[in-house]
Amino acid sequence: MPHADFLLIHATVITMNSEFQIIPDGAVAVHGQMIVAVGTTVELEAEYEAGEVLDCGGKALIPGLVNAHTHASMTLLRGLEDDSRLDVWLLGYMMPVEREFVSPEFCKVGAKLACAEMIRSGITSFADMYYYEEAVAEAVAEVGMRAVCGQTVLKFPSPDAESFEDSLEAARGFIERWKGHDLIIPAVSPHAPYTCTAEIMHACAELAKEYDVPLHTHISETAQEVEQWRETYDMPVVPWVKKQGTLEAKVIAAHCVHIDTGEMHTLEHANAGVAHNPSSNLKLASGFAPVTQMLEAGLNVGVGTDGPSSNNDLDMFEEIRLASFVAKAITRDPTALPARKVFEMATSMGARALHIDHLTGSLEPGKRADIVLVDLNRVHNLPRFDRDPDAVYSRLIYATKSTDVTDVMVDGRWLMQAGELRTVDVPPLLEAAAEYAKRIDSFLVEREGSVLSKLIAIGGAEQAESYEVQIKVRLDDPDDVINNLSSNGLRIIRHAHYLEYDTYFEFDDRDQGRLRHREDDFVNDKGEVFNVRYRLTLIGPAAEREFPNSVLLSRSRFIAPASHGLRFYREYFKPENEFPVHKDRLRWLIQFDGVEFFINVDRVLEPRLPNSFLEIKTRTWSRRDAEDKADRITALLGVLGLGSAEVVRDEYIQLITE
Amino acid sequence: MPHADFLLIHATVITMNSEFQIIPDGAVAVHGQMIVAVGTTVELEAEYEAGEVLDCGGKALIPGLVNAHTHASMTLLRGLEDDSRLDVWLLGYMMPVEREFVSPEFCKVGAKLACAEMIRSGITSFADMYYYEEAVAEAVAEVGMRAVCGQTVLKFPSPDAESFEDSLEAARGFIERWKGHDLIIPAVSPHAPYTCTAEIMHACAELAKEYDVPLHTHISETAQEVEQWRETYDMPVVPWVKKQGTLEAKVIAAHCVHIDTGEMHTLEHANAGVAHNPSSNLKLASGFAPVTQMLEAGLNVGVGTDGPSSNNDLDMFEEIRLASFVAKAITRDPTALPARKVFEMATSMGARALHIDHLTGSLEPGKRADIVLVDLNRVHNLPRFDRDPDAVYSRLIYATKSTDVTDVMVDGRWLMQAGELRTVDVPPLLEAAAEYAKRIDSFLVEREGSVLSKLIAIGGAEQAESYEVQIKVRLDDPDDVINNLSSNGLRIIRHAHYLEYDTYFEFDDRDQGRLRHREDDFVNDKGEVFNVRYRLTLIGPAAEREFPNSVLLSRSRFIAPASHGLRFYREYFKPENEFPVHKDRLRWLIQFDGVEFFINVDRVLEPRLPNSFLEIKTRTWSRRDAEDKADRITALLGVLGLGSAEVVRDEYIQLITE
Repeated sequence: MPHADFLLIHATVITMNSEFQIIPDGAVAVHGQMIVAVGTTVELEAEYEAGEVLDCGGKALIPGLVNAHTHASMTLLRGLEDDSRLDVWLLGYMMPVEREFVSPEFCKVGAKLACAEMIRSGITSFADMYYYEEAVAEAVAEVGMRAVCGQTVLKFPSPDAESFEDSLEAARGFIERWKGHDLIIPAVSPHAPYTCTAEIMHACAELAKEYDVPLHTHISETAQEVEQWRETYDMPVVPWVKKQGTLEAKVIAAHCVHIDTGEMHTLEHANAGVAHNPSSNLKLASGFAPVTQMLEAGLNVGVGTDGPSSNNDLDMFEEIRLASFVAKAITRDPTALPARKVFEMATSMGARALHIDHLTGSLEPGKRADIVLVDLNRVHNLPRFDRDPDAVYSRLIYATKSTDVTDVMVDGRWLMQAGELRTVDVPPLLEAAAEYAKRIDSFLVEREGSVLSKLIAIGGAEQAESYEVQIKVRLDDPDDVINNLSSNGLRIIRHAHYLEYDTYFEFDDRDQGRLRHREDDFVNDKGEVFNVRYRLTLIGPAAEREFPNSVLLSRSRFIAPASHGLRFYREYFKPENEFPVHKDRLRWLIQFDGVEFFINVDRVLEPRLPNSFLEIKTRTWSRRDAEDKADRITALLGVLGLGSAEVVRDEYIQLITE
Repeated sequence: MPHADFLLIHATVITMNSEFQIIPDGAVAVHGQMIVAVGTTVELEAEYEAGEVLDCGGKALIPGLVNAHTHASMTLLRGLEDDSRLDVWLLGYMMPVEREFVSPEFCKVGAKLACAEMIRSGITSFADMYYYEEAVAEAVAEVGMRAVCGQTVLKFPSPDAESFEDSLEAARGFIERWKGHDLIIPAVSPHAPYTCTAEIMHACAELAKEYDVPLHTHISETAQEVEQWRETYDMPVVPWVKKQGTLEAKVIAAHCVHIDTGEMHTLEHANAGVAHNPSSNLKLASGFAPVTQMLEAGLNVGVGTDGPSSNNDLDMFEEIRLASFVAKAITRDPTALPARKVFEMATSMGARALHIDHLTGSLEPGKRADIVLVDLNRVHNLPRFDRDPDAVYSRLIYATKSTDVTDVMVDGRWLMQAGELRTVDVPPLLEAAAEYAKRIDSFLVEREGSVLSKLIAIGGAEQAESYEVQIKVRLDDPDDVINNLSSNGLRIIRHAHYLEYDTYFEFDDRDQGRLRHREDDFVNDKGEVFNVRYRLTLIGPAAEREFPNSVLLSRSRFIAPASHGLRFYREYFKPENEFPVHKDRLRWLIQFDGVEFFINVDRVLEPRLPNSFLEIKTRTWSRRDAEDKADRITALLGVLGLGSAEVVRDEYIQLITE
């Protein structure tokens, strides 16, 4: 007689196998990590000798739920800032707080709390994406849940990496250490096309392919993202992503709120999984994902909670009900996304979307024992109509609460029994969380009067690239340089002439940075102003790095259109000091040795500086790229006949005020 | 020192008073039914001598939630049929099952179970609408909740009334018995404009005004309803309702999904309350109510769960979160319907919408003690950021679960303490519910092969008016009658001539009724067919009542457009017998003595009947009206010169087959 460690009997077994078999007085036998048999109670009692027999008392025995997309550690930022515009929420709160507080310890505490909450909600597997994913993986493995853990890669400096190469290296190391683990499926997570570059998307795909691990990213979450892609690349996001080779990896694409039918087929053809996050999409007003169309296109669509700071909880029962509700309302069809289909999305199809369906997502012999017991006999879920056995899906979706989950097993190990968590010691974690919250509160209170907050509060601020390689030299004769520009085979892409009226606001606290109000009056050949542009830029203190002939400037820079007059901003920001700087600027965008550079020839008119100046600037996103570009700047100076010109380290504002 | 029965101390008191005052270490003193003081713990401990002092241990102390619209007794029909089209759900399941099973006992059991669930969800007051509202009120009063109980009035026979007059009388008696009760606010509930008539809407308003009680109705739930109103009355629903005097009463208007800005202002001007039911509107695919616009128009909008058969639960925390989420997504604005505003809708504003804000909705001295304690310190709701005191609203809306409610007091009486219900004995109720479910299941299984189910399954079936007063007489000379018609000062509204090709399907079980497939070929003056219409009608067995010269026919009749060919229906319904009846019909719609009548002059062509026949038919909705119309039919026969014609009792199909 074969042996099983556990025999769970007298349950309504909802297998979620390909026949959607339901076994009314059903049983499941578990041995080691595995499900070894699924059948009726009578059959399995006759067949197995069990270490422990558990009478489920008629509860529903379901496959553990799959949370297809989250940022678990962000439990620590739950409720930090709600009901705000995306830019205020993200740039004003999430990103500054993450820069300041996110550490391996932070990620571990947050991830463990998330696990506690997810277990309570019947989740056994999830796809995560965050910083210090090593710490997340450790937390998840200690708790005993199953997760696809994606190490984030970004073009910006992030809490855990100074540059894209650093984070890619971190991802490689992370994957090597965790590949083959029983519970953790390591992955690489290029954050999103708009926070990466083509090169980063490509490099991440190569890494994912090299190790055959999933690639977890955000795709087309907002309409703005798609609009930007169409403007810049003349295509929506998915074809662009495909062009970078990303779809050759095992992709998990979160959101897909704004994709068209063609993109759905492209994703389906690549066997990419989609993570649908209805709470987050609604709460952040991102829109309504076309779930029914995605399913019609044959895509594997899972359901995700997204991070707890845009939800604000990790409740899968809430999420799947919402998925069904929203699909019905949007299609104006109450038969859309019926209960069984959305339960499939939360189990077997969700596992396929995460590329872990060989491990989990259904109750079948040979799969890992990821099992959840749900009490469907509480007052909010009765009476029960039995004429259609499939009505149990309707009870699970439309009336079950996460608090009806009583027992959770992952990989053959009990994580919760009779409502008691077995592997997470919650109180010390909550203490640590409270401590973080207190520090974050203080940090934000202190910042409350900050220029950045105020800039963001009036809307539209955008963080610009934070790396720039640049040089400034004093010019004896600007005309020489201008002649060299047009005669030395440099390719001139664009040229403009404008009068730039800058007003710098300075604040007592220099760490706030300088706020520049800028008016550009564009001048045509006849010297007439034909266009005027106003902008606000908050320039953070610069972190500099010297190269032989140039400087790598890394700093935060927030740009907003200045739709009000200068007086408004003066009164609104109340600067301590104010400096006007007026320049006459000739500006070229050129290509030299395959790289684009901006060249400015400036005369500072007020306060008047004796010489003209030449500036060369180019954007960069990585350390290696910055070095390459610094070399080219040296060569370019030579070509312009300025090999021996005096290099000026100061900015104009410094030349003037010092 | 003044005395209080209860002093609740050490709570975060969220008053929902007009200043939205929050008292961090707050207290509430209760004496008898009333809140006598709200303040800090220190203040109230110094001021009151208390019978019992309760340490709330930092929980949130909130006003009891107001569920602005439900049909409580429908807990017994929860999950009966989900993911179906509205017509299948309503006509195929809800209405037939209600006709068969709804009784005072049914309503009482269902309402008590609903109360148990609502108390658990922090609800202390609700607006109900159902049949046998007397039984509902008894159940609610026994449990000790507060409710606006609306006795339903309809133009159709309903489970508790044969006619509109009966239900209006029942409503009057109900209001008289319950008016002035401590917990029950009786109300009248004309179900909806499309299930009432102008006269019914008017009569209900008069009744509500006479007793100064609320009038609770459904307004503009579906786009179809509004479309029908525009077609029929050339106006949307609210102006039509206003025309019937309805808005002179204290209106509670459920749904208002499809109303325009003008209608909002009309409702606001009338101080009508609106009940927004997001789960139901989404699940039934009714649409997205314009909540932010309604609020901008100054309307009092409450939040309702609607009945548990279209939700499928009575969870207010789920409902208010959803209200906020959906408002954000629909307006594409994440700042829309922020947490505090939606919490206001669930409390003080909800009470105003129900016209009970003098009793409940906020924690203020002088209001009844409707109080709820919520534990905000569970793992899914931590950490807590304190820099903004209003963040507590965000925790209540975005992360609180109904299961976080621990204690509920209504009217100074504890209904739940530490998660234990004090006034409802749930197990026997669940037993009774299970018994009903079993009987309903059997009833539906038996019906499974029924013609009606099949008709509904193929979509579009509509129940037609079920009362008709009619007479048929044998004609010696049709031309005489036709001449009399055009010469006797009767007003002819419409006239048509068509060939009617009926095919009757009969089934072994005569209770199934007859299914008629009908083709009408409309003929113009030159004898040419210019239009063809196909319809299916399932005609139930008739309940007849004789009048001197006519018959009152009451029967169920379901009409569906016949978009397939006759062969399809023959194969689909597999009738036992089939009879063709072909007629040449001249049809007039006339007005006589202020009433509209249809007059048919028929020659039965196949199988050929020797004489012509004249039929007079008119629709009715009440017993008294039927009697009046029967008298007029007698007079009309005289006018047509048929005072002594032979009255034929049989239908054509009977004349042919017998």
